[in-house]
Amino acid sequence: MTVAVAHRSEHDLLGDRDVPAEAYWGIHSLRATENFPITGTSISAYPHLIEALAAVKEAAARANEELGLLEPEKAMAIVAACREIRAGKLHDQFVVDVIQGGAGTSTNMNANEVVANRALELLGRAKGEYQYLHPNEDVNLGQSTNDVYPTAVKVATVFAVRELLKAMAVLQDAFAAKAFEFRDVLKMGRTQLQDAVPMTLGQEFSAYAVMLDEDRSRLAEAVELIHEINLGATAIGTGLNAPAGYAESARRHLAAITGLPLVTAANLVEATQDCGAFVQMSGVLKRIAVKLSKSCNDLRLLSSGPRAGLNEINLPPVQAGSSIMPGKVNPVIPEVVNQVAFEVIGNDVTITMAAEAGQLQLNAFEPIILHSLSESITHLRTACLTLAERCVTGITANTEALRAAVENSIGLVTALNPHIGYTAATDIAKEALATGRGVAELVLEKGLLPAERLAALLRPEVIAGSGTPQAV
Amino acid sequence: MTVAVAHRSEHDLLGDRDVPAEAYWGIHSLRATENFPITGTSISAYPHLIEALAAVKEAAARANEELGLLEPEKAMAIVAACREIRAGKLHDQFVVDVIQGGAGTSTNMNANEVVANRALELLGRAKGEYQYLHPNEDVNLGQSTNDVYPTAVKVATVFAVRELLKAMAVLQDAFAAKAFEFRDVLKMGRTQLQDAVPMTLGQEFSAYAVMLDEDRSRLAEAVELIHEINLGATAIGTGLNAPAGYAESARRHLAAITGLPLVTAANLVEATQDCGAFVQMSGVLKRIAVKLSKSCNDLRLLSSGPRAGLNEINLPPVQAGSSIMPGKVNPVIPEVVNQVAFEVIGNDVTITMAAEAGQLQLNAFEPIILHSLSESITHLRTACLTLAERCVTGITANTEALRAAVENSIGLVTALNPHIGYTAATDIAKEALATGRGVAELVLEKGLLPAERLAALLRPEVIAGSGTPQAV
Amino acid sequence: MTVAVAHRSEHDLLGDRDVPAEAYWGIHSLRATENFPITGTSISAYPHLIEALAAVKEAAARANEELGLLEPEKAMAIVAACREIRAGKLHDQFVVDVIQGGAGTSTNMNANEVVANRALELLGRAKGEYQYLHPNEDVNLGQSTNDVYPTAVKVATVFAVRELLKAMAVLQDAFAAKAFEFRDVLKMGRTQLQDAVPMTLGQEFSAYAVMLDEDRSRLAEAVELIHEINLGATAIGTGLNAPAGYAESARRHLAAITGLPLVTAANLVEATQDCGAFVQMSGVLKRIAVKLSKSCNDLRLLSSGPRAGLNEINLPPVQAGSSIMPGKVNPVIPEVVNQVAFEVIGNDVTITMAAEAGQLQLNAFEPIILHSLSESITHLRTACLTLAERCVTGITANTEALRAAVENSIGLVTALNPHIGYTAATDIAKEALATGRGVAELVLEKGLLPAERLAALLRPEVIAGSGTPQAV
Amino acid sequence: MTVAVAHRSEHDLLGDRDVPAEAYWGIHSLRATENFPITGTSISAYPHLIEALAAVKEAAARANEELGLLEPEKAMAIVAACREIRAGKLHDQFVVDVIQGGAGTSTNMNANEVVANRALELLGRAKGEYQYLHPNEDVNLGQSTNDVYPTAVKVATVFAVRELLKAMAVLQDAFAAKAFEFRDVLKMGRTQLQDAVPMTLGQEFSAYAVMLDEDRSRLAEAVELIHEINLGATAIGTGLNAPAGYAESARRHLAAITGLPLVTAANLVEATQDCGAFVQMSGVLKRIAVKLSKSCNDLRLLSSGPRAGLNEINLPPVQAGSSIMPGKVNPVIPEVVNQVAFEVIGNDVTITMAAEAGQLQLNAFEPIILHSLSESITHLRTACLTLAERCVTGITANTEALRAAVENSIGLVTALNPHIGYTAATDIAKEALATGRGVAELVLEKGLLPAERLAALLRPEVIAGSGTPQAV
Repeated sequence: MTVAVAHRSEHDLLGDRDVPAEAYWGIHSLRATENFPITGTSISAYPHLIEALAAVKEAAARANEELGLLEPEKAMAIVAACREIRAGKLHDQFVVDVIQGGAGTSTNMNANEVVANRALELLGRAKGEYQYLHPNEDVNLGQSTNDVYPTAVKVATVFAVRELLKAMAVLQDAFAAKAFEFRDVLKMGRTQLQDAVPMTLGQEFSAYAVMLDEDRSRLAEAVELIHEINLGATAIGTGLNAPAGYAESARRHLAAITGLPLVTAANLVEATQDCGAFVQMSGVLKRIAVKLSKSCNDLRLLSSGPRAGLNEINLPPVQAGSSIMPGKVNPVIPEVVNQVAFEVIGNDVTITMAAEAGQLQLNAFEPIILHSLSESITHLRTACLTLAERCVTGITANTEALRAAVENSIGLVTALNPHIGYTAATDIAKEALATGRGVAELVLEKGLLPAERLAALLRPEVIAGSGTPQAV
Repeated sequence: MTVAVAHRSEHDLLGDRDVPAEAYWGIHSLRATENFPITGTSISAYPHLIEALAAVKEAAARANEELGLLEPEKAMAIVAACREIRAGKLHDQFVVDVIQGGAGTSTNMNANEVVANRALELLGRAKGEYQYLHPNEDVNLGQSTNDVYPTAVKVATVFAVRELLKAMAVLQDAFAAKAFEFRDVLKMGRTQLQDAVPMTLGQEFSAYAVMLDEDRSRLAEAVELIHEINLGATAIGTGLNAPAGYAESARRHLAAITGLPLVTAANLVEATQDCGAFVQMSGVLKRIAVKLSKSCNDLRLLSSGPRAGLNEINLPPVQAGSSIMPGKVNPVIPEVVNQVAFEVIGNDVTITMAAEAGQLQLNAFEPIILHSLSESITHLRTACLTLAERCVTGITANTEALRAAVENSIGLVTALNPHIGYTAATDIAKEALATGRGVAELVLEKGLLPAERLAALLRPEVIAGSGTPQAV
Repeated sequence: MTVAVAHRSEHDLLGDRDVPAEAYWGIHSLRATENFPITGTSISAYPHLIEALAAVKEAAARANEELGLLEPEKAMAIVAACREIRAGKLHDQFVVDVIQGGAGTSTNMNANEVVANRALELLGRAKGEYQYLHPNEDVNLGQSTNDVYPTAVKVATVFAVRELLKAMAVLQDAFAAKAFEFRDVLKMGRTQLQDAVPMTLGQEFSAYAVMLDEDRSRLAEAVELIHEINLGATAIGTGLNAPAGYAESARRHLAAITGLPLVTAANLVEATQDCGAFVQMSGVLKRIAVKLSKSCNDLRLLSSGPRAGLNEINLPPVQAGSSIMPGKVNPVIPEVVNQVAFEVIGNDVTITMAAEAGQLQLNAFEPIILHSLSESITHLRTACLTLAERCVTGITANTEALRAAVENSIGLVTALNPHIGYTAATDIAKEALATGRGVAELVLEKGLLPAERLAALLRPEVIAGSGTPQAV
Repeated sequence: MTVAVAHRSEHDLLGDRDVPAEAYWGIHSLRATENFPITGTSISAYPHLIEALAAVKEAAARANEELGLLEPEKAMAIVAACREIRAGKLHDQFVVDVIQGGAGTSTNMNANEVVANRALELLGRAKGEYQYLHPNEDVNLGQSTNDVYPTAVKVATVFAVRELLKAMAVLQDAFAAKAFEFRDVLKMGRTQLQDAVPMTLGQEFSAYAVMLDEDRSRLAEAVELIHEINLGATAIGTGLNAPAGYAESARRHLAAITGLPLVTAANLVEATQDCGAFVQMSGVLKRIAVKLSKSCNDLRLLSSGPRAGLNEINLPPVQAGSSIMPGKVNPVIPEVVNQVAFEVIGNDVTITMAAEAGQLQLNAFEPIILHSLSESITHLRTACLTLAERCVTGITANTEALRAAVENSIGLVTALNPHIGYTAATDIAKEALATGRGVAELVLEKGLLPAERLAALLRPEVIAGSGTPQAV
């Protein structure tokens, strides 16, 4: 026994198809879901994108109305439908797969259909009565996927990046707080994993904070480039079917709706085919990933132990570390951040290949660019917050052991270079290593420096502090 | 007003926590979900992995019973719970995030808890009554995440790859059928996008079929390596807490349960830290992606047009191609396959970085390896099927235009090399290009060859056919 | 019979070694050449680096003299030696391999030895008489590899990038000249390789020029970040052994010597371990590579043929294209640029991995970063110049064929959307495709528009020109 | 005053050019050097390739003679010239750049010209007297770049890989010798950088040896695929101009000349366009790089110190480690191997992109594939030898400290799981960590096990040894 489901019939270039009566999406979306059964995840997974699409459709409707191309009643209905979507409604009607052919056409068609059908309802019509308001002729009026889609992707990206910037600031603050807390904790600095010269743990943590600060600046610069849109370019940048004044009007409305200082690209043919701003954005995300990963590698190394490791710091335990080794606690939070970093770096290669594969007037592979970029941004965001809240803020230092390592170190001899020379200092270091004795006692034994002067030169605070204290 | 939800209390290294009474997962899973709010996707998205974990737990329980380490009643309950999971039940109880720290510990803990609680129910106990059957002491008996998790990942990968192999065979058959269909369709072959010498469209399509055939062979070889497991290695490969005979018994049971010819690695210390087989597998997936992408690039190029392109073949239209350009049909199916290929290539970099980041006795980053590998395999599979069913099988050829291009070509002159020499042939080609005239008329005009002999030499069938017909 | 070669004996931490008497390099360089027999290419292959190292050594000597740490006579000798190196002398004495362990220590040691031995000669001493002027105690005074090497790499990179920027400008001008030359050449625009709507060939070429213009802006921004140096940081950024005032003095001298607006990093601990600026630079180089490669793909596609291709433009023939096919000319110049692009993209992954692998206070892998970055910059430079001079400037257009394709196109119907609607236009397009007939005749036949109005709407110039003419 | 240089004039498709009289290369090579001034490195940097090209030319001449297409005198001269090249002569005449457009045409043309001119001399003629023996009509007879070049690249790759395999065996033996030497050295194993359970240092080193052994097997498999050649395919795989019997004869001669079991591909159209075997080879090289890098990361970590690190093993000092820190010795040999690994991983991306960019009947980007592959193979080879000879063989262990760490460890408690349970063991571990006390004393204090039984269970030898001793 089959259950009778109500349908409506829709028509396109290829013929007629039944669509569930209650669906806001239509025949184009239907075909796309059949054509792209790739990941099983629909674009509704990207709320920023759905809302950005609605913003673009709203801006276009307002521009078209302003230019006398769209009846006010239709425009008002489209605007109202778009506002509902921007308020979070109907997202489940965005059903096409995140990985799709066609340069975003299916996403745009899906948006046109949902907006049209909701607008029809608002006009007191039934879904599918496109003679009263048409997905392509009205909702998509003066537009092409090739300007709508990249514009929406950009708007969505800007909002996603803003959230990432905030998360990075949270993490930066967490590192900076630790830098302050550990400002007097002396420890051995290391280069190439070998003992080098003394520093403070605060200096070590301040470096992580500064890295994030710089990365935030770079990300803020990269997102600036994303504010340049090609709305009004239509199919290939020549603006065909977009009347004079449309591009400017649509941009103005979109800027007002989103609150973003959007600008229209100077050369729309170039802007329509170019993915450079996405490649640049991904490159900066990769930079952030590289440094986050490096910082997490350090945290894992410094907290290695508890007895057969460096054991300099303690990460807060957040879960049992082993199903077999009792009491084991692992650095799982830095580890998950490392993995997000590896994902972001892989995504950068995906984005690079997709961008390189563009041909002539268009890049048909923007959907995978959007997909990879979205993942990179949102996962970096959750990773930063998790690292800040579940790890960095709870880190403690093993102050006494750290200080003892400094006092026991051979690296102290470096501070004597200016006083006894690199050659003599090398001999002292060599003997200290061979005999296990201390640098100071060897220097005294050989009469290279008087005891008092030596003590003054070897004070770790002096050695570590000789670098000017540096603001985060 | 808050709704009262029933809870049970559980205890671990870090203290006590409430767990929803109806949950099969327990305190370790709870903490993991809190610690890793990264992607919002839980491991239940990988049914192959869930089933493989249950298979491993079942095999371990049988081995432990066999060795007298686990009471038969407990073993029976564990086995029954695992079989339910393998039959598709309780998958929604696998709640930890796909990207997680801890080398898979949270996934293993999640499995231990779900199996234990379901087994407790089967024993007539309540969930959480671990004094009767314990997630770590019974379900995980003789095991460590470090042998359970990689073993389960391998079993899951084998099953996923088998499905991919089938999909590739479907695509290969589709190309081979077209190779046969087009076996007599003459066309110009091209090198470096420049007209070269004649061939048949069948030869062109047979190359795609052969590529897939070779790729299937390579994939089948790579998946062989995945059959080597480290079950019994426990924490670091020394087999601590796994009694003599356990590794072999567990392997035997797992092989029987899964039907796979699994073998235990000869050196378990090495096997526990090594991700080489995954890197190799990903490398082969990348090879497949590269060639699929190249084939799709060709399909898109050959079907370019309809009027200002090569227009040699027609891809079946599957959806309207443009929201602005009426009647436009785009090669959306090859395009989506290209994008999957780019994703697979990016995933390979992610997997490479994760594998390289392993340290000492373990690679902590296997979860992202699993995640990326799963995506690559399953998306390649859907891509192959989509390409076969929605594109290749419907391709038609523009036979007349193809033949005309051959007859009009300058490349025919290559066939005269052995008869008039490369130097003279170069002069003919040059003049043909400059004047727009045909190769044959110029050769005749210059008296280089008698007309009859020339006609025989320039028969395209002969030229294209001089390569032995080659079996797919 | 062995030939007697004169030697001098030198001493280091590990003991004594003979060095050829005439060598300016010493024992540290000798050991490095033995330790790193990796590529067979020495750092003398990077003249910018050698000159930058000499500039840093000169700046340090001046600062040390100024602070009273180095006798004027020694300082003067060091300065003179450095100037010779900057003038191109002694480069062959830089003998260590381009791929080397040790964070650049061997490169710095090599520089110290060459400068010291040349300075000794200028002081009237023999090479190796380090008691009069010592590579480490005098030439390296107040320095560490960990501040000298990254500073020199940055200075070298700035100069290399300046040359790349010039080459990109040459290529941009070549494209812009063609954009102007082809400003009236009508052609079909294409999206997803399918015929779209008309444009001009000038618009197409202007996009390439604009891409380069934007890329130059991004590269100029990225190179700004490279002006931040860490000279004075010494071993780990704490400035140990660099007295107060040294960092500022050395920076000032280095800025004067190089003419670059160098600034000292605010946090030297961070600056000493951070490779972010190199990652960012490589990311921008990758962006340039992606777009250059896309442009070259287009050039190869547009010039495909001569008879069975798009045949829209002609690339100037620069060599015979085939050893077997007479008269064949291939797009070898774009092809070589594609390959450089692939190399740059691969180098970006190498740089990313090297940057991620940094640990604690230092990144030991800067030599491979320098190596990959140098290759990317210099090969992009030669690629741009080659593309400009041997390809773009000689491109011609097949104007008549291009125009005919426009007039014959179905895509013209897009211009009728606002007048007959997307749905009716779709029917026209479909019929045109099925029957091979023209869009205009079908519209007239169906009485959708009066002839005169139709002719006005379908004028290709109008269609292509509706986008505002856009400045390059 | 200009020096008069003797020239000869040569002619090609584009006109006449002067070539230095003494040059064995001719007009095609000349144009190529002008067209591709990319890297400044000529293909003479790849002796394996030069020799392989000569082998192919020799095989083709013998086949042509056998088939009666080439006069015996010409054939003999060509064979003699090729043998000289294979013996190492005339390599400096291979002047075209390693990065070149044209699918290897310039390399093949260069080979044709050098062989022809040397053969002319052997025939008593002057260079350039091509009427007596022609580069294209005689040396290249029955050939195309598109079969000659990939065949030569494959032969060259096989020989290069054989040398790499030997170097890997040297490194494997060095690790295996250490595994034997350290077979009784107890130490703590670590997972996720946290103390885990005891093992021997010998087990740790045996893992590195086993990794290499497996990698060698994989590499040997991958190189098998490289033995499949397409000689006889000519331009696009249809075998045009290669008469019946030629492919088989040429293959047979080439196999005899090289001693390699070469086979002709079953489908030459596919074989001519496919780069799959190179992608696979590069993927395996990447796998090797990943694991070498991981092993080197471990060596650097285990030797960290000397006082504030793990300090488990000592790498032999090979050079002074710092220009500022006296006595510092750094792990420079593992560091240089890490960098080669990063290069190989980057090269894999380059090769991937080049392979993906192939179009229709040919991949025009094989030169960069050859370039990247050659670098990866030769650098991995020097890296393996350097690591074996300058590092691994000299490693020593700090046996006493390693044993003390085991006895002091909390991880020992894992061995008590089967006897006191995971829950009780967790409590012991927790208390040990909090109080700094030993596991054994806590177990005794709580009366969990009798002293004698406890002592037996906690013997580190037993714990570490419970894994079966495993052969390398």
